[in-house]
Order: sequence, then structure tokens, then C-alpha cells
Amino acid sequence: MYACDEERMRDLIETFSKFGDTGHGGVTRYALSAEDAQARAEFIRRMEAIGAVIEADDLANMYATLPGTDASAKRIVMGSHADSVRNGGNYDGILGVMSAMEVLTTVAREGIAHRHPLTAMIWTNEEGSLYPPSMMCSGITCYDWLPEAVKGGFRYDDMMASRAIDGPARTFGEALAEFPYRGDAERRISPEKACCYFETHIEQGPILEEAGCELGVVDCVIGMFMYRIRFLGETTHAGTFPMPRRRDAFYAASEALRHLHDRLDALDVDDLVYTTGEVTCHPNVHTCVPDVFEFTLDVRHEDPAVIERARDVVLSLTERTWAGCSCEVELAWQRDTTPFDARLRGFVEDACERAGVSHMPIHSGAGHDAQFAAYMLPTTMIFVQSRAGLSHCEREHSSVRHCAEGATVMLNAALSADAALA
Amino acid sequence: MYACDEERMRDLIETFSKFGDTGHGGVTRYALSAEDAQARAEFIRRMEAIGAVIEADDLANMYATLPGTDASAKRIVMGSHADSVRNGGNYDGILGVMSAMEVLTTVAREGIAHRHPLTAMIWTNEEGSLYPPSMMCSGITCYDWLPEAVKGGFRYDDMMASRAIDGPARTFGEALAEFPYRGDAERRISPEKACCYFETHIEQGPILEEAGCELGVVDCVIGMFMYRIRFLGETTHAGTFPMPRRRDAFYAASEALRHLHDRLDALDVDDLVYTTGEVTCHPNVHTCVPDVFEFTLDVRHEDPAVIERARDVVLSLTERTWAGCSCEVELAWQRDTTPFDARLRGFVEDACERAGVSHMPIHSGAGHDAQFAAYMLPTTMIFVQSRAGLSHCEREHSSVRHCAEGATVMLNAALSADAALA
Repeated sequence: MYACDEERMRDLIETFSKFGDTGHGGVTRYALSAEDAQARAEFIRRMEAIGAVIEADDLANMYATLPGTDASAKRIVMGSHADSVRNGGNYDGILGVMSAMEVLTTVAREGIAHRHPLTAMIWTNEEGSLYPPSMMCSGITCYDWLPEAVKGGFRYDDMMASRAIDGPARTFGEALAEFPYRGDAERRISPEKACCYFETHIEQGPILEEAGCELGVVDCVIGMFMYRIRFLGETTHAGTFPMPRRRDAFYAASEALRHLHDRLDALDVDDLVYTTGEVTCHPNVHTCVPDVFEFTLDVRHEDPAVIERARDVVLSLTERTWAGCSCEVELAWQRDTTPFDARLRGFVEDACERAGVSHMPIHSGAGHDAQFAAYMLPTTMIFVQSRAGLSHCEREHSSVRHCAEGATVMLNAALSADAALA
Repeated sequence: MYACDEERMRDLIETFSKFGDTGHGGVTRYALSAEDAQARAEFIRRMEAIGAVIEADDLANMYATLPGTDASAKRIVMGSHADSVRNGGNYDGILGVMSAMEVLTTVAREGIAHRHPLTAMIWTNEEGSLYPPSMMCSGITCYDWLPEAVKGGFRYDDMMASRAIDGPARTFGEALAEFPYRGDAERRISPEKACCYFETHIEQGPILEEAGCELGVVDCVIGMFMYRIRFLGETTHAGTFPMPRRRDAFYAASEALRHLHDRLDALDVDDLVYTTGEVTCHPNVHTCVPDVFEFTLDVRHEDPAVIERARDVVLSLTERTWAGCSCEVELAWQRDTTPFDARLRGFVEDACERAGVSHMPIHSGAGHDAQFAAYMLPTTMIFVQSRAGLSHCEREHSSVRHCAEGATVMLNAALSADAALA
């Protein structure tokens, strides 16, 4: 039973929070930006200092490896992403990188023996906040193992051609070609090189905090779909057109939204989450009745049967008119529930027990690089409590103590894997 | 009983439709644009050809006057606006200008005697589609007579500083300084110069067409208010935050919108119109619960007591939460019902009867220059049937026959005024 160091974790958090510091608590650290490069440089500096061997692959994924006693054994990999959303926090993604760094540092400092090489890694462009889509480089790296339905979104040429949604016009490929930390495709993580993958991440929800649990033993990334739901009416002048004849697409959408809430709630399924986050209104002029109104619907649940029942509700919206308006729906994307490896989860649970850290099983509602890695390697995640469940905002926070506990549990789970795996 | 000429009206409509022709049925003819200047040049050409005296004032409002037999009598003015919205139609505003031109042309061609001078006029920038606000130049011209509550929106310096909302950065004042048709402020229409004002305009609604009436005898511009109604929630991640705890501002708005419809409909008032045309959603990202959602509410009715009852409904929204979100409202603007002159309306009705044109009393739901002129001079409007009630779009249409009838009725009403007014 080994323990990571809380003061080293505090120092890591404070150091990495400087790269892309917005000046009001959080960071903007886009993939392949100068700030991302700063974070990579710090990773290299600290990992070289403990004797780790640094590599990068063609996607600028980065690896720091402490060799084990068995030269033929495959790597136990731990990591996450270093990029952030705009005005994001100091924990989403980077905590997993820092935790992996702290695991390797503890192993090196305390001379902990291990058979398998231990690798800390950084995945490039998990957020897709400058170059969509999210999970771009884990998608490319794990491409050959992805389900057919998912592959289509991660073709290499399409990813290289992804255009920056902000700032100077540039593609991901162009930015990658100029990034100082690139290597060979041979360096990519793969089942030939690695035997398992652990990712520590903040929960990004309030469940652990409310349950009074410090850590979550993640059992899966839950399945989801996203639809665009569109209402078509007629635009007429605000002052001159009689009410009974109007076909107001915004009002239609609001009727359908309430119906959607009622029908999805009536499925009476625990843990079903659904979100209508993005709207479009046309012509969006105060003196005109809206003739087109669209909202996105993001639905997530671990049980595929529930996802299908929810989908039936969505499709049923098109079978009638709403306030005189027609309704059409368009599937934007979807993913199946991705279970994590039971054996690795057992190592994590066991490490929590031995460390005396309170824990509970939990699903991941959000997508992570681990979700794609799980198609390729035995994979699991460890969640650290998020204060008030806030994430993707500068107020995102997890205590240093919880962060250090997460690293401690990952260290001990990795050592269990080292003992148990071939 | 005199009649205007349908072929001349057809020729006017076809000619003016060229200035700013979009190529798909309508026009984009912004105030003070090259297209606006083309329309002014055509007005001058045709009016000079019948012997009218042309003037322009400092706001580029334009006047064409046929002197009457009584040199001391004040002008009977007829007109409307020549500017359009983007991708607008060939009738909104310009029909009133063409009708006034056709009235003067008929008087000149047929040698109809009249005591009072007869003036056709063009108001600059009624639409406010490039330089807000709408009715800018009638607002400035009639400023001294406007109610206090309205004046604040039309101060001269503010109007000159109005910035173009599209295209090259420019203020209205800058564009005005470069416009070829400008004269002295002394030339502005005023109660010293004019004794009454008639404006012919398309209905922009479906009521006349549905009632089978060719023309509308407009009795008032109905009162209105516009509020911004805002809901404040909390943004959390789509995948990770439990449903019962969410405070979704978009969902809150949809609940309140339905409540608003129910309460306003329950007032059980004929002809109450209300429109929620413009929405704003933040952060408007499909993976985030909306934390701010706002919609505009435009309410119109001729009875001030009804407007106040509607206002009470709006204000009541702030007295409770909606799906856990708070609600705030902000008055954007309002106007009182502006009645038109009863005597002038009588002349119009009488002219309809004598011309054998079907007619009905009707309110104007939309604002017009006539609304501000009515504070300064006896004023009334004549509505021409709008096909399908469409306006502010390229499919806007009124038949040549109805347009000619509108001009005929305005001619005869003006001649009645000529006989009756001092």
C-alpha cells in the first residue's frame, strides 16, 4: 500500500493552472496552442527528471515511460488530456495527466519495484474545443477497434481537415505540422505495446459529493444519442396577423418540449438524463412570428433498451403537428454504452478499500478518451469528486486531498495490475 | 367622382420595382442607398413632368407640390416611404408614394380644380432596416408633438449617430450628408405648411382579403408594448447532472410561454395579438443545460385597458420561479393607440361608397409614418388588400386593380378635404 504525495499534487495543480490562465480562475488551453505546448514542456521536464523516457507519436500524443524489470512486458498506461474548453477549469483532463505523473514520480522516488513498464500519457485534442470533434486523437488512435457506427466520425483525412472554429483560420493538420512535439506513428499506444489503461478524471457531476464519497469506481461510459428536432411554421407580421391562424414554430417547439419532458419522465427510468442545450430560431426578429425553430436533444443512459425507448419518444414527435407546425427530426450522432474492464475495476475498488478512501460505483455520463481506449485495451476510469458538480467552467474544483487520493488509488490499482497481468 | 388610372399604376409599380431588385421578386432598398436615390430621381422626373414643384428637407424627406387656386391655403399632403426591409416587397411604403404620385398626375392630367396645394411626399427611413429605429424621420420631423414617452427614442443627435447594422460601417448622419437629395429644415412638413395628411398602405395582414373587402378605412394605429423576458438557471454538463436538480432556462421559458399564451388568451379579448419572435439562449451548446434564455414579447391592441391587463400578465411572470429558474422582465418600448382623424376617415369612407369599392373599418397593427404625423396634423390611412396577408417578404403582393382603387379613393377623399377644410 503506497501513497502519493499531497504537496506534490498541489504543486502540480498550481503549475499547470498557469498554462492558459484566463486571469479569473480557469484556463483556455486549446489543443496544439502555445499553452498546450507549455503544458507538454512541463510534462517532459518533470518526467525526464525522474528518469522516464519521453516519446510522442504522429498525433502529438505524448508518453513518459519508466521501464520495468521485465523488458518483454507490455506497458501499464495512465493518462488523460491536457487541452481544455474555452474558459474551462484546472482539473478536467489535466488532473488525469497530473495523477499519472504523480504515480510515476512516487514509484521512482520510493523505488517501488514493478515488472511492467509504467507510462504516463497525454492524448491530444480530447475536447475538440478548437478543432472538432471531441475525442479526436483517441478516435484516430483506436480507429481500427471502433464500432462501424462510430468510425465514420473519425476518419484521418477528415480529422486533419477539421477547421478551427475560432481565431485564425487553420486546420488541425496544419496546426499539428507546426507543433513542436510530434513523432512517429509507430509510437502510438496499441495492444502490441500496452496491456491496460487507467484514466483518473473529475466526476463533472454532483453525485459523489452528495453521497459523501471521495472517489468513484467507474463501470462504463453510458450510451447516448443526439437529435436535432425542428419545427416548421410560417412567418407573419407581429402586428397584423390574427392569432388563431398563426403557425409559430417557437411556440410549437415549446409545446413539444413539454411533451418530451413528460414522456421521457414517464419512462420512469432511474438515471436517464436528457438535455436540450442548443436552439436556432428563424427569422429571430421581434416583429415576426418564427417560422423555423430547432433544438438539440442529447439523451444518455447505460441501458441500450432505455435508449431505444427514448428514441421512440423522439420519433413519435413527427407523427403529429404542434400548434399547426410540422416536426422533423435528424440524428446527429450516437454511441453505445462502453463497459470498462471488470478486473481493472476490481483493482481500483480494492485499492480504495486498502487506502481507506470512501468510494462507490458510478457511470460516466461524459465521453472520455478512455471510452475509445476501452475498445482496444482493458480500460477503466477513476472519478474524483467535483465540487457542486461544476465543470466546463472556471469554477470547476476538486480538493487537493481528493486529487491526491485519486492518484494513490490509481498507483495501487496499477501495481495490482502489474502483479496480476501477464 | 374622379378615377385614377390602372395602367399608370401598373407602370409605376413595374418601374419602382427595379430600384433594388433582388432578382427573385422583391427589393432591397435601404434608406439613403443608391437604390433609394434612384427611386427619388424617378419621383422627381415624373412629378416635374406634371408641373409639380420639388423640394427636399434636411432629412431628405421629399415633396412634390401642385399649387392650388388659393395661395394662402395649406397643403393637403399624401405619401409614405420609399425604403424597404431587406428582401422586402414591391408595395410596402412605395405603394403610398406611387398612389400620391398618381393622385397628382390625375389632377394635373384632368385639370381638376383644387384650392389647397396638393403634395406627394416621401418620408426617409421609415423601415429603419439599415439605420434603426423604424419611423426615424417622421419621428424627428414630428418630434415636438410626440408624447414624452416616445420622444426619448427620436432625439436628433441619437438618430444622426445611428450605426448601419449591415455593410460598411457608417452612421445615418454620414449617409445623409452624402445623399444627393437634401434641403433645408425649413422645408419640413409642419402644421404651418399642411392642413392634413393621407397615407395609403398595404394592409400587411389577411383581414381585408378574407372579408372580401378591397380597401380598409383605418381608424387607428393600435397601441403596443415590447418586453424582453429572461429566465435564469444554471449550466451543467448534459451527461453528468441528475435531472431533478437541473435549472434549465430554456425549459423554464417554454413553461412560461405556455402559461403566457393561456393567460393572454383567457383575457378573451378580440383582436389581441402577441408575438414572441426573437430568442437568445446561453451558452447554446448541445452538451450544456441552458442557464439564460430570453424571448421578446410584442403585444398589440387598440384599447389601453387591454394593454394594461396584458402588462399585468407579463409582470406576474416574475412572481414565481419556473422549473427552478427565476424570471425577470424588461420593457423595451411601447406606444399608445393613435386614433386617426374622424373627419378625414369620413371623407375616405364616402369616397369608397361613391367609387363602389368594398370597404370596412380596420385598425393598423403595424407602425407607420402616419402614426407620428397624427400627433401633428389631422391624419388618416387607407389600406389596400394584401394577398394572403404577406409582407416584409418578396412575395408581398396587391393587385393593380386594388392599388388603383386605393389611389382613386385617396384622390376623392383629398378633394373632399379640399372642399371642406379651411
